[in-house]
Amino acid sequence: METWDALTARRQERAYADTPVDDADLRRVLEAGRRSPSARNLQRWDFVVITDPTAKADLARTWQGAGWTPGAPVVIAVVAPETDDEWQKLSIEYDLGQATTAITVAATDLGLASGQSSCRDQDLARSILGFPADHYCSKLVTLGHPAGRAVAPIRTPDRRPFDEVVHWSRW
Amino acid sequence: METWDALTARRQERAYADTPVDDADLRRVLEAGRRSPSARNLQRWDFVVITDPTAKADLARTWQGAGWTPGAPVVIAVVAPETDDEWQKLSIEYDLGQATTAITVAATDLGLASGQSSCRDQDLARSILGFPADHYCSKLVTLGHPAGRAVAPIRTPDRRPFDEVVHWSRW
Repeated sequence: METWDALTARRQERAYADTPVDDADLRRVLEAGRRSPSARNLQRWDFVVITDPTAKADLARTWQGAGWTPGAPVVIAVVAPETDDEWQKLSIEYDLGQATTAITVAATDLGLASGQSSCRDQDLARSILGFPADHYCSKLVTLGHPAGRAVAPIRTPDRRPFDEVVHWSRW
Repeated sequence: METWDALTARRQERAYADTPVDDADLRRVLEAGRRSPSARNLQRWDFVVITDPTAKADLARTWQGAGWTPGAPVVIAVVAPETDDEWQKLSIEYDLGQATTAITVAATDLGLASGQSSCRDQDLARSILGFPADHYCSKLVTLGHPAGRAVAPIRTPDRRPFDEVVHWSRW
């Protein structure tokens, strides 16, 4: 798919078909995440890929807003190191935002739908995913074929107007 | 450009040609940022576009690592609301990471190079950019034609190995 089409077709999808995600497609999407830029190239991220229905259902209990995630055939748990340094905390979350956008745009390019959810209960997430005590799970990224309309460019997205968001030379 | 090519060609560029960025290209790159996903679609970002050499030079003094940024014909200052809520702070930075990746991938698609720098001295940034007292400038995103090699897919990026970053079912 053309880049502009993938960028404008990406949407938050919560309803997935049962069709599994092709393994080569999944690897390519993860590769996009792995290649993401990060502060000083620190790459403070790990991706845990979950397809087991029980594990997905357990993971969905880590946050009240994650109840829809087990419907996706693949859930990627985005895990990062904990730190007490406020600046680094923000820097890590910024870089995770970069990585998940690479993941979701790469997925869109393959006709896959994607979604994101927070993950809050870290003890529960750790017990399911097995990540170290000094790490946390920031997000759950879902992947799959959409149950409804195909992934296609969105003409008029629900966003603030261009001229409100963009300032020329000065606010 | 094909999406996969744009995702794999994006790189952190610090050396730019003097050639200005085409206005339609700049608008498309900003549109990619505007369309980015965000927590509850809050869109907590504003983009201030700087091309004036003096303003770019002043802006570069907001952080010791930003000295290279005035070499780019365009600098986009990414501005967001301040908050005392720790969770929201992290959520905003995560969303800014999503927006800047959309911006840099859209730029790559147009053959433009891009780069990123932190912005730290908020009083100085505010005096140059004119954003409100309850906002901060998180990042400077540079855009332009590369001075050296063209933007093209990178075969073997300097990243952690795939099998170290990706975990199947469990860490």
